[in-house]
Amino acid sequence: MSSSKTDPGRFFEDFRLGETIVHATPRTVGEGERALYIALTGSRFALASSDEFARRLKLPSAPLDDILVFNLVFGRSVPDISLNAVANLGYADGRFTAAVYAGDTLSARSEVIGLKENSNRETGVVYVRTTGVNQRGETVLSYVRWVMVRKRDREAPAPQASVPQLPASVAIESLQLPAGIDFARYDSTAAGSLYYWNDYEAGEKIDHVDGMTIEESCHMSATRLYQNTARVHFNQHAEKSGRFGRRIVYGGHVISLARALSFNGLGNAMRIAAINGGRHLNPCFAGDTVYAWTKVAEKVALPGRRDGGALRLVTFATKNRPCADCPAEGSEVILEFDYTAILPRRS
Amino acid sequence: MSSSKTDPGRFFEDFRLGETIVHATPRTVGEGERALYIALTGSRFALASSDEFARRLKLPSAPLDDILVFNLVFGRSVPDISLNAVANLGYADGRFTAAVYAGDTLSARSEVIGLKENSNRETGVVYVRTTGVNQRGETVLSYVRWVMVRKRDREAPAPQASVPQLPASVAIESLQLPAGIDFARYDSTAAGSLYYWNDYEAGEKIDHVDGMTIEESCHMSATRLYQNTARVHFNQHAEKSGRFGRRIVYGGHVISLARALSFNGLGNAMRIAAINGGRHLNPCFAGDTVYAWTKVAEKVALPGRRDGGALRLVTFATKNRPCADCPAEGSEVILEFDYTAILPRRS
Amino acid sequence: MSSSKTDPGRFFEDFRLGETIVHATPRTVGEGERALYIALTGSRFALASSDEFARRLKLPSAPLDDILVFNLVFGRSVPDISLNAVANLGYADGRFTAAVYAGDTLSARSEVIGLKENSNRETGVVYVRTTGVNQRGETVLSYVRWVMVRKRDREAPAPQASVPQLPASVAIESLQLPAGIDFARYDSTAAGSLYYWNDYEAGEKIDHVDGMTIEESCHMSATRLYQNTARVHFNQHAEKSGRFGRRIVYGGHVISLARALSFNGLGNAMRIAAINGGRHLNPCFAGDTVYAWTKVAEKVALPGRRDGGALRLVTFATKNRPCADCPAEGSEVILEFDYTAILPRRS
Repeated sequence: MSSSKTDPGRFFEDFRLGETIVHATPRTVGEGERALYIALTGSRFALASSDEFARRLKLPSAPLDDILVFNLVFGRSVPDISLNAVANLGYADGRFTAAVYAGDTLSARSEVIGLKENSNRETGVVYVRTTGVNQRGETVLSYVRWVMVRKRDREAPAPQASVPQLPASVAIESLQLPAGIDFARYDSTAAGSLYYWNDYEAGEKIDHVDGMTIEESCHMSATRLYQNTARVHFNQHAEKSGRFGRRIVYGGHVISLARALSFNGLGNAMRIAAINGGRHLNPCFAGDTVYAWTKVAEKVALPGRRDGGALRLVTFATKNRPCADCPAEGSEVILEFDYTAILPRRS
Repeated sequence: MSSSKTDPGRFFEDFRLGETIVHATPRTVGEGERALYIALTGSRFALASSDEFARRLKLPSAPLDDILVFNLVFGRSVPDISLNAVANLGYADGRFTAAVYAGDTLSARSEVIGLKENSNRETGVVYVRTTGVNQRGETVLSYVRWVMVRKRDREAPAPQASVPQLPASVAIESLQLPAGIDFARYDSTAAGSLYYWNDYEAGEKIDHVDGMTIEESCHMSATRLYQNTARVHFNQHAEKSGRFGRRIVYGGHVISLARALSFNGLGNAMRIAAINGGRHLNPCFAGDTVYAWTKVAEKVALPGRRDGGALRLVTFATKNRPCADCPAEGSEVILEFDYTAILPRRS
Repeated sequence: MSSSKTDPGRFFEDFRLGETIVHATPRTVGEGERALYIALTGSRFALASSDEFARRLKLPSAPLDDILVFNLVFGRSVPDISLNAVANLGYADGRFTAAVYAGDTLSARSEVIGLKENSNRETGVVYVRTTGVNQRGETVLSYVRWVMVRKRDREAPAPQASVPQLPASVAIESLQLPAGIDFARYDSTAAGSLYYWNDYEAGEKIDHVDGMTIEESCHMSATRLYQNTARVHFNQHAEKSGRFGRRIVYGGHVISLARALSFNGLGNAMRIAAINGGRHLNPCFAGDTVYAWTKVAEKVALPGRRDGGALRLVTFATKNRPCADCPAEGSEVILEFDYTAILPRRS
């Protein structure tokens, strides 16, 4: 009865290895996104909060929070990549390059780098490299994710399986810091943490202590802010007969909350340089309280600079379970997020 | 015991035919309103999202979303016009003229253009033309609405009935596009829709498929953003003994959600030029999921230009009822919104 | 098992009389904070809403709402002062000095001006003077608050009791208006109130009539916007076994709502010059509806100027109880807030 101008999203058999999909809705970002991100997550990292703090580090103004940028780029890709996804399986080889400033316009595209039908022939795994660029064409973020996508038609022929080689972590040599950044005048009092790169050790575990309860309105507002349209987050009328009987919290909001909670113990981990990997281990719903803890996986000097260093961090988030004993598995663990952060280094 | 400095709002007998009421609270709008509107509605129209997209159309930057502007202008008028309203009955002859940009300051005034007491003498209908202007005095929006307003005193004499002649739709000749706009370089990939003006036909129906569940916090935040003070939206303590036992969602928020949902099928309907009419057919409450569908009522060329065309669209919103069969009546239909949108035209 | 890099907050015995604590997270504020504050409180004061209105008063643009500034400065101080607080006992001698404009960066510090152990030795009262400054080092707000803080160790020796002398109200001579402000062209129609300073009398009581219901998402978003980290507002998993079995609404959000409601009756009370005192009399929870009324405690001319005058106002907020009879005590009264506002004066 109605026309077919609505977008049903791509099914597994619609993806072609090597094709590049240009995503819609370029987005100018600014003070509104910054304030909303703070209001929805409680993030307190000084670099994303203060132009003055950023200028001491020789940046022009406060860059937008890295996970906000991740979620905005991810949001652009959803209508093309994951509208018919069953599950978001993982992330790899994510690199934050140019910093994003208020007034920048973000666009995104994804290249299909792998396709593998599942043996049940109902679904397949799609690997994409998604790239976010600013209005000057500079890459602000590039990462690989893979998702399980439904087939429209079980009998549709599948392409030959092709699975990309993905690094276990991003090589330290390929990390890129915001242009011009200089930590010589870093103000740790303003940042709210006494602990420099020097003070962390590989193997160290940090319980971030605090918990944040999620409300429907909060996770939906965050997910809409990113213009992420995945239906499972918004439509209670449909989800009441869905897999869980309720709306699912967007996994990127859980990453945001875990990162915001990690301020307590990692306040100087001011810049995320890489996403090495990430998995959403269990679903999260409104009413759940998110806690987090972090393991310092590696401590690495930055080639050619003495003012800052890198930590490879693995943050786990749980629901309704404090993290004093640093749990890494079980039904209450909802996120494992492996990333590389830059901290100032005491000389 | 307390003084009478609080504003009780105008009752029916307080309105005078022909008087102009200047509304309070001029409002400077900007990046905060833009980001919040996206976060509260999930809107994805490229023109309101991206300065770069707007500049390709020769605008100085992204104009604010048209329905955001409508709600802001409407909000100014509430304390003077509809604080004692029983019902918002309809809209007509709405024209969006100058585009609104970040940094603009919106003010509003309303002229009383009709008055008609109801036969029960308890209420009357007030017709106003509300005009929103920017800081240069340019009209950004003008529309007629009529509301049923309580009388303070049943026995108060009523003015002679006067009902304005209202057009069934805004004449195509009187539509005004944002100054300087040029669709020659329109980027439909960035806009997220393949369908140009040419591709739509009168009579076509489009189910927008997606649904959005409303939370108390979301509709109240949206309504407060517009500084709309109508009590029924905010005060559960009073409304629990009110008509419905609960807070009512502001009808303008339903318009916002329906328009945001309509992106899926009407992604290139970038600019609203006119509101021909509108009715809130049933109340909507927190917990309801809004769906929408649209009928293409008319397809009209724009006098003197080949780069864009107009569609008269009638969008229906429902609650807790998908729109695959395009329902136009019944207790689940909450909105009928008749408007004229501008789309790019393939040459 | 985990490291101790997380901040446990200061306990009573960690404070030293006379020490100055520099708080973390300088914050650049702007259009995002302005829009969110309106969306979360419904505030309608014209001075904080409109650049054009502000320019008529010879200010460069609309200053941020005073209570927004208060909450932002307060938020900076929480991790250092009140993370282990049992109760926020009071405020005194608060003075708003330089106005805060979009683009300003706020930092804060607190001086410990009093310490007094309680007789049970479990807790003590800490008095601090908290000062918020902008990026030019100008003070935007300074106020005293005192909080009851837990001791880490009951047996820890306490310093000699020292309680500061605090004024019952801020002296009119020490009030400071925003630089350059001039009320000669004040537009009361735009402001939305007919009542000038001249029209109020000491002893007058004003019921603000309207009520605003609080949702979990709204109070948490507001409190996160201020980067206030006090745990009782956010963590339902922990609070379900806490004192009230649920999250407590941040008292500063109640102040915001009471002030926003007070527009109805005090629309020209455009600028808060002083906080004379304030007490949170009972806790407030999501689901509660806030009402407010105000007593005009004093009417004072401003030394040296004829265009504006000061009113000392005491606003009471209640929960789930309309204020027609102006209640000042009882379990439904949640706030007493004594402040001095500047209004235009008719010549």
